[in-house]
This record gives sequence, C-alpha cells and structure tokens, in this order.
Amino acid sequence: MTDMKQIEQELLSYIPKDIPETATVMSSMKYSLSAGGKRIRPMLTMEFAKLCGGSKDNAVPFACAVEMIHTYSLIHDDLPCMDNDDLRRGKPTNHKVFGEAAALLGGDGLLTLAFETVLSERAVNLNGYEKCVKAGRTLAEYAGAAGMIGGQIIDLESEDKQVTIDRLKVMDEKKTGALIAAACVMGCISAGANDVQIQAAKAYAMHIGIAFQIVDDILDVTSDTATLGKPVGSDAQNKKSTYVSLLGLDECRKISRELTEKAVESLNAFDGDTEPLRQFAYYLCDRQK
Amino acid sequence: MTDMKQIEQELLSYIPKDIPETATVMSSMKYSLSAGGKRIRPMLTMEFAKLCGGSKDNAVPFACAVEMIHTYSLIHDDLPCMDNDDLRRGKPTNHKVFGEAAALLGGDGLLTLAFETVLSERAVNLNGYEKCVKAGRTLAEYAGAAGMIGGQIIDLESEDKQVTIDRLKVMDEKKTGALIAAACVMGCISAGANDVQIQAAKAYAMHIGIAFQIVDDILDVTSDTATLGKPVGSDAQNKKSTYVSLLGLDECRKISRELTEKAVESLNAFDGDTEPLRQFAYYLCDRQK
Repeated sequence: MTDMKQIEQELLSYIPKDIPETATVMSSMKYSLSAGGKRIRPMLTMEFAKLCGGSKDNAVPFACAVEMIHTYSLIHDDLPCMDNDDLRRGKPTNHKVFGEAAALLGGDGLLTLAFETVLSERAVNLNGYEKCVKAGRTLAEYAGAAGMIGGQIIDLESEDKQVTIDRLKVMDEKKTGALIAAACVMGCISAGANDVQIQAAKAYAMHIGIAFQIVDDILDVTSDTATLGKPVGSDAQNKKSTYVSLLGLDECRKISRELTEKAVESLNAFDGDTEPLRQFAYYLCDRQK
Repeated sequence: MTDMKQIEQELLSYIPKDIPETATVMSSMKYSLSAGGKRIRPMLTMEFAKLCGGSKDNAVPFACAVEMIHTYSLIHDDLPCMDNDDLRRGKPTNHKVFGEAAALLGGDGLLTLAFETVLSERAVNLNGYEKCVKAGRTLAEYAGAAGMIGGQIIDLESEDKQVTIDRLKVMDEKKTGALIAAACVMGCISAGANDVQIQAAKAYAMHIGIAFQIVDDILDVTSDTATLGKPVGSDAQNKKSTYVSLLGLDECRKISRELTEKAVESLNAFDGDTEPLRQFAYYLCDRQK
C-alpha cells in the first residue's frame, strides 16, 4: 500500500509561512492537519491513480487536498454549535486548544488551502491544467452543499429524532461517501481514466463509505474508549438513530460485509492490480478502531 | 459601469438544487448571497476584464466566485464566536435566521461553491482551462490564511487592545485589500493580461482597499444607523483601535484621498478606458454609506 510518510510531510508543506501576526491561524491549521488519523482518503487517491495506469506521485497534491477538506470538516464538526466535542483522535479538539474563533478560521483556511493545492504550480506541473480543473471541480462538487456539507445538515437536523434507514443512508452517502468518492475519482482524473472507470471508482467509494459508517456505529457499541481514541456509547447517549439502533448488530455486520463485497466487485472495471484496494475494503470492514 | 442585474441573477444560479433534506443549507446560502450589498468586488472583476481588452461576460463566473467568498466571510464574521453581530445590511444576520450551525455550514458551502464556480464547465467554456486554474489559484491565495483569513485573525487578536497604525494597515491589507485584489487580478486573468497589468491592478486594489476601510471608520463616527444600515459608534463601544481613533478625522480624510489618488495613478499601466475605474475609486472615497 501507499507510504503515508510522503503524505504526512507534504500535507504540512502547503501551509503558507506568512507573517508572525497570523501565526495563530497557521498553528490551528497545522495542529489538526498533523493530528494523525487513518489518511484513508489520500491513500485512495494515490491507489486509484496507480490502478488507472497513472503515477502515485502525480496524484499527491490531489491526495493532500482531499485530506485538507476532511480535516476542516472535522474541525467545524467539533465546534460547540455543531457536535461540541472535546476529544478527537484522543487529543483535545481544535477549538479546545485555539479557541472557537481560531478553530473556525483554521477550518476556513484548510478548506481554502485545499483548492490552492489542487491548483498549485506543483499540481499543474505534475498533471496539467485540464486535470487540475477537473480534480478541483470534483472536489468542490462532492465536498459542497450537495455533497458532504449537505450530509452534515441532514445529520444536524436528525438530532434527537427517530430517523428512517433511508434518511440515514442518504445522509451517509453525502456526509461520508461523497468525500471518499472525491478521493477515488481525483486519483482517476490524475491518471487520465475514462468515464467507465470513474463511475466504477465512485461505486467502490460509495459502498466502502456506507460500510465504513456502519462499522463506526458497530464499534461505538462494541469497542472501548482506549481502543477507539474517542468516547464510546456516545450515539446511544445522544439518542442518535444509527444503523445499529435501527437494524441491530447482526444485520449491520451482514450489510457491511455485503457492501464491502459490492465495492470489491466494482473493481472489475479496472485492468490493473486491484489487490491493494480489495484488501483495503476488507480491512475497513474488519477494523477494530 | 457594469450592470449588476446580471451578477445578481447569475450568483444564485450556481447554488445546487439537490434534495429536500438539504434545503436548510441551500436557503442559508441564498439568504446571504441575495442580501444585497454594494457588489464592489464582482464589478471590479468585470471592469478589469474589459480594461485589459477582454469581455465582461467571460469574467462573470470569476466575479460571482469572489462575491461568494466575500459573502461567506461575512456570515462567519458575524457568528457569536467572532463579532457576534445581529444585523448586516439592515437585515438579521444569517445565524439569527438559520441558527449557528446552518450559518457555519452555509458559509462553508459558499466558500466551496466559489471554487466550483471558477472551475465550472461554464467558466472553462468562457476562459479555457489555464485561466480557470490561475483565477482559482489567485482566489485561494488571496482569500486564504496568508490573505483575508490572516486579516481576520489579526482583527480578532487586536480586540480590546491598543494597536499601532502599522498593525492596522497590515490587518486591512489582508482583511479587506486581499479579496479586492483577487477580484481585480481575476478580471485581468480572464482577459489574458500581462504581469505589469496584473501588478498595477493589485496596486489599485490595495490602495482602494485601505481607503475603503478608512472611510468605513470615518462613517462609523460621522453617519447614522439609518443611512449606514448597521449600528454606528460600534468601534468606540468595542474599544477598537481604528484609523480615526489613532489619527483623527481630518488626517483620515486626507489619507483616504491620497490613497485614492495613488489607486487612480496605477491605472496608467493600462491602454484602455480607465474612466469607470477612476470614477469608482473616487465614489468609494466620497460615499456616505
């Protein structure tokens, strides 16, 4: 699989140096960007670029951009007016360290930096203008109000409510699936993939995205805080409808397995070595944290 | 000058339709995007495109994108964790209507939509891939942490403090000047302008940007709430250092005039008809609201 050290280093390199007076917002951005996490999305971007006959290296700026979007969404999601979380990946959330205003601005900064990165000279030298436009457009569409942000508003308006399984699914397709889809599709774009491959990458992403969310719900009731790095049982405590509360543990395990198999099937559209992405789908399904 | 009806209509056309479940975030975006305002930035984008021998129409997607960034920055700036304002342009602020979470997400949505717009098929059809990349990169750089967002953090960290005139100037160059510069430069990019012209456009923007801010400070002590559409005297009430509190009214009137004249001088780099932009600089300097 992809060496994530490259991503870890390069991610921070895009943050502008600027003047001492703006140090707080740069620190806020760096803090969350270097706070670890599974780096699932950049890995997918690079793997899909390789699978489509392109180069992982060329896809790195696109991969970094997706992770910046993911990171900003976590910062804003943790804010008091949203989920009001104090811990993220076992560390204090951004606003707990820098205050609400700097967390808000740090998130805005990362969101903006994602597009600066996709459109950077470096990205253009590696991919050309057309691919940078298409990658940036994809990122904006999937991360925007009809994508990830749309999922967040559905999530908010579902709080303290019994929601249907259909609503849960459309929420997660947007909230989780859309950005994973952007990651996969941007990898394809970097490699100059055709439309059939792009659709297949999207299908893979959507299936592992929902499976990922179901596994998250499962772990929230079966894991412990030390393993997970965040409080367990929070869904039940918040009276949140989850796949587990609606369908039960056994059914959730079955469905997450089925979705993973569908994701793996969609890899048949590619001629290259699909083994890493096949393994990755099963890894996500079987993970313990 | 530019017909702003075109901008008003087109601005809203970029908001995705999507599903009923995401209506709140779309409404939040539309509310602030259609809340009026002087539309200074899109007008500048179109005027500079024309001045550089390009077409105003081609520059419209870039113009809309700048206004989306401006609008998102106002929504986030008004939030309780930032300036905590209840009124904007004489109407309730976004979070007063939609709640904090939907305001936060509406702002994020507009920020993302700005880049979707610069990179849209429509923008590419009008300007080609290279110009869209360069316009989007410019927008990201000037609106990001080293630009507008950097100015916002300086503003926040200057609250309840006596600040120097130098700090005030660097704050406003970022907070106000940077996005006005993006607007002017993106117009130049749409028209395929050369580097000398782009630097001149940037100089024009920075000078009118600071002049604009000084005039804002003047109006905060000399105007009334009905004329201004927002509470006057708020700077003094917040113990905020302003150009007026540091330099006095007369000196501020003199400096804003000098900056305006410098802005007008920088228009000498252009062969086209500079009269509209010359008039506009003086209009901003002499405005009563």
